[in-house]
Amino acid sequence: MAGKLFGVGLGPGDPDLMTLRAHRLISGASVVAYPALAGGESFARSIAAAVIPAGCREIVMDVPMTVERAPAQAAYDKGAAEIAAVLQAGEDVVCLCEGDPFFYGSFMYLFARLSARFEVEVVPGVTSITTCAARAGMPLAARNERLTVLPGPLPEDELRSRIEGAESVVIMKVGRHLAKIRGVIEGLGLTDRAMYVERASLPDEVVCPLAEAPERAPYFSMILLTKGADPWL
Amino acid sequence: MAGKLFGVGLGPGDPDLMTLRAHRLISGASVVAYPALAGGESFARSIAAAVIPAGCREIVMDVPMTVERAPAQAAYDKGAAEIAAVLQAGEDVVCLCEGDPFFYGSFMYLFARLSARFEVEVVPGVTSITTCAARAGMPLAARNERLTVLPGPLPEDELRSRIEGAESVVIMKVGRHLAKIRGVIEGLGLTDRAMYVERASLPDEVVCPLAEAPERAPYFSMILLTKGADPWL
Ligand SMILES: C[S@@+](CC[C@H](N)C(=O)[O-])C[C@H]1O[C@@H](n2cnc3c(N)ncnc32)[C@H](O)[C@@H]1O
Ligand SMILES: C[S@@+](CC[C@H](N)C(=O)[O-])C[C@H]1O[C@@H](n2cnc3c(N)ncnc32)[C@H](O)[C@@H]1O
Repeated sequence: MAGKLFGVGLGPGDPDLMTLRAHRLISGASVVAYPALAGGESFARSIAAAVIPAGCREIVMDVPMTVERAPAQAAYDKGAAEIAAVLQAGEDVVCLCEGDPFFYGSFMYLFARLSARFEVEVVPGVTSITTCAARAGMPLAARNERLTVLPGPLPEDELRSRIEGAESVVIMKVGRHLAKIRGVIEGLGLTDRAMYVERASLPDEVVCPLAEAPERAPYFSMILLTKGADPWL
Repeated sequence: MAGKLFGVGLGPGDPDLMTLRAHRLISGASVVAYPALAGGESFARSIAAAVIPAGCREIVMDVPMTVERAPAQAAYDKGAAEIAAVLQAGEDVVCLCEGDPFFYGSFMYLFARLSARFEVEVVPGVTSITTCAARAGMPLAARNERLTVLPGPLPEDELRSRIEGAESVVIMKVGRHLAKIRGVIEGLGLTDRAMYVERASLPDEVVCPLAEAPERAPYFSMILLTKGADPWL
């Protein structure tokens, strides 16, 4: 009988924000798999580090950060093949996913490659958006409010028109797009409603009004923009 | 010294989807607080039930489900006053929140009432949206895709125009709005892209294409609509 693939959300960084189920699955794993930025460290692995059992086998997917799709696709093809071989041999594989696997997570590329052939269970995790909201003391949405999640790499014009038509907004993947996003928010006169959060829940976390954000943002950063959910006082 | 207020996300229903931090805080609590629909059971309490220590004091906020705001506001005023008295006496209070406290969660009303006077820590939790996506095998968003969260009680016209301009869409609070939402999605020719999920992660969970959804939906139900996140094959 083939093994089962688990896509396990680890939460935003603090290992304490892992779910009980994630903790149990990783503690009992004989094979884990995770992506790493080519050559570099794996954020997912660092979150789970203390829980991965000694002697556990590790499948590392080195994913290159290129603009073209093909090299990353090839990395997921190779990783999926390695994982498939383990599953075929009857062993389970626990795939480590930062945050939630299906919320802007790379696990979906493995899911697309393997879910027709193998049993897959996706274990949801705490996302970065609610973690950043918690750290910023900024409720995301209440009652009949709408919430829009936008990736920072979107073109300036699209960001502007999407933010204009929105209520609460979360902007992901800020990184090197910070100056562009700031300009858009400033142009809309919304800077005083925006918070900047970097590496939420980690020891070197940064939380501040967007107006006081650093010049350069790391990849793990986010901007929250709300009208201020009606506190119902 | 005053006590500290914790707003603790419990995840979508399965107690195993609680975070390690939530589990530890509840296990050690001497006072918990939670909302309950007037007269009825508290979903939040039911998730945490096995973890609440014997002898723990419980503050129940009976929140009436009325169209007018005043009765619910009064319930949160009363709850906040009871919690404040405990904090003032130097004891911590752990407030139990279904899902994530700042994602359409009622904890934000307590936060608005108490955060200026007391230390508050918000502990994020797994939200219903990524849980429903996991259970439906339906990734929410990848790369530069946008995600829109809409409450089902929005007027029909607004739902239609918001869905039209969106990419991936999550519709919360379906309940008695099911027929209206179905009509909108059908009218846009999107029914075959929509999944219906009820009570995700609980023993009586329902997951099916929207076309096969039951006639009546409970409050804890959701519709997911995606173009199908590009699987990057
Ligand atoms: C590829 S997405 C992964 C999202 C993840 N799957 C989740 O559920 O949050 C990476 C983006 O998530 C956001 N992010 C992830 N972890 C974060 C953290 N600890 N603090 C701030 N932003 C974070 C950043 O915007 C980053 O660019
Ligand atoms: C007041 S909101 C609370 C959301 C919660 N704070 C969270 O983080 O998911 C209630 C709505 O959340 C959704 N919901 C919560 N738990 C759910 C579950 N287990 N399955 C499906 N939908 C759920 C439903 O749409 C419901 O109407």
